[in-house]
Amino acid sequence: MKIVIFGSGLIGRCWALLFARAGNTVQLYDKEPAQLNGALDDIESKLKGLQSSGLLQGQAVADVLKRISTTTDLDGAITGADYLQECVPDIVDLKRNVFAQLDALVEKTGNSKIILASSTSVIPASTFTEPLKHRSRCLVAHPINPPHYIPVVEVVPAPWTSPEVTAETRRILDSIGQAPVVLNCEVEGFLVNRLQFALLMEGYRLVEAGVCSPADIDTTISKGLGLRWSFMGPFQTIDLNAPGGVDDYCKRYNPGVVRVCKDFGETKDPSPETVAAINAAMREEVPFEDLAKRREWRDNRLAALAVHKLQMDQLDKASKQ
Amino acid sequence: MKIVIFGSGLIGRCWALLFARAGNTVQLYDKEPAQLNGALDDIESKLKGLQSSGLLQGQAVADVLKRISTTTDLDGAITGADYLQECVPDIVDLKRNVFAQLDALVEKTGNSKIILASSTSVIPASTFTEPLKHRSRCLVAHPINPPHYIPVVEVVPAPWTSPEVTAETRRILDSIGQAPVVLNCEVEGFLVNRLQFALLMEGYRLVEAGVCSPADIDTTISKGLGLRWSFMGPFQTIDLNAPGGVDDYCKRYNPGVVRVCKDFGETKDPSPETVAAINAAMREEVPFEDLAKRREWRDNRLAALAVHKLQMDQLDKASKQ
Repeated sequence: MKIVIFGSGLIGRCWALLFARAGNTVQLYDKEPAQLNGALDDIESKLKGLQSSGLLQGQAVADVLKRISTTTDLDGAITGADYLQECVPDIVDLKRNVFAQLDALVEKTGNSKIILASSTSVIPASTFTEPLKHRSRCLVAHPINPPHYIPVVEVVPAPWTSPEVTAETRRILDSIGQAPVVLNCEVEGFLVNRLQFALLMEGYRLVEAGVCSPADIDTTISKGLGLRWSFMGPFQTIDLNAPGGVDDYCKRYNPGVVRVCKDFGETKDPSPETVAAINAAMREEVPFEDLAKRREWRDNRLAALAVHKLQMDQLDKASKQ
Repeated sequence: MKIVIFGSGLIGRCWALLFARAGNTVQLYDKEPAQLNGALDDIESKLKGLQSSGLLQGQAVADVLKRISTTTDLDGAITGADYLQECVPDIVDLKRNVFAQLDALVEKTGNSKIILASSTSVIPASTFTEPLKHRSRCLVAHPINPPHYIPVVEVVPAPWTSPEVTAETRRILDSIGQAPVVLNCEVEGFLVNRLQFALLMEGYRLVEAGVCSPADIDTTISKGLGLRWSFMGPFQTIDLNAPGGVDDYCKRYNPGVVRVCKDFGETKDPSPETVAAINAAMREEVPFEDLAKRREWRDNRLAALAVHKLQMDQLDKASKQ
């Protein structure tokens, strides 16, 4: 496939890497040539990291890298391309301008079979594609950072997105080794943030109510519930927590689940005191000046976990044969 | 320390193993001698699993095992013991009877310095200890199954639990390598189930509203959010997701967090159709007859993850020296 990445910032570089690793030809577009200069170096460094972890599927870094070219010529990039992934900051007006520009170029180049996917984490495609001629080719494909270690991508069609475009986007993401999940309609926060915020909000409330410390919330997840969740989702989890599977679990335990959830406090912004308490707890663990180093640590942990999961998946596959 | 485990079922065996591995003398009590017969064999088999994963800290299985004895003499077991962990099924009347019996034996043996901890996942200690003479020595210490691979234990004092008992329980659990979190008061579902159910309920609602499939909820966690959560909690996560740390995150994103959470539907039992849809999705992944095998798979994955996390923690420690 011929892929265009629109925007060469952090997430654009990751997308370029993912598509190229899977054998596709990638054009990395930015209107700022200066931005593009550092992008290839950064991608090369990321590829080396993947290779040393065994996540390049035996390919040489140079072979993957040569599939990626940079360009400031959007017109030329779109001509004949199969798929474009937009990666500009999450600002509504910016998305509107970019998609209007893309719509005009699709018309001009006559490439009406291209898919136009936005990386936005929060803005539904209906917000910025409604007036477009080729709006049926537009949708959201939101990755989690860093996507080369966290495979899920949420695919969110607008009401006017063609079902074939949604299905083809899923197929394309599957083909590059990501894990697409497909929403049937637009909802606030999509899936990732709804699930993340459900947990976070109850964390805020428990700390605000004085039930426990912020560190205890983190420990409950990082040394408790999060272990199962790194390879099983919530339904797969409860399916194994009752003798007769999920059906049996729901009969036995859902009255308790409902009772506990009805006991949750109000959904509101945590107070300044609560935020200050969480901040103090976090700064005790990681001083402010070490935050950048800590982000590096997180990415290294995610890389090591990706390797671990790949090994476990291979063992699973082998034991099934 | 001298430890008594009350009840030799699944969770009692795990507690015996954990305390003995850390060098403590354990008496595993059950009123049914027949129950005790299989218990030591099962513990030995679990210890062999831990040893082969390198999780026995260089000890021989036999050396750990010889610290565990079984008994049907509760009176003798309690005499001189430091800590008792109750592990009977989560039935209120049963807990009341057991704790009344324990209270009488503490009085009779004069061992009023013992701590009486319940493994209950759901019944607050105030429900079954109120009338007891030694109620200040009672509290909940709830593990997650299997606790030799999932270290978190939630410690939940009753209103009358002595603060020294709570602090000492935390110290004891720390000393055996578990990860205690301490609640300041009793709340429905404690921490583990409140956080687990917050996620599960939003999963139910999203499937019921037709937003996505049950499998997509699972994938969003198991190939997405759950990866970070296997080594960082929700506050540690957002602390790294804004340039200025959690303080900055709250300023930038909490209005969005609140808006998304206010969009959540009603808290209620999912409909029979929703449960059936989830059940169908689970049975497509794992046929009913394979559930037992799948639980074994889960425990093997948790064991491998425990080894992976131990290795990563050791690398972290080494890099700090």
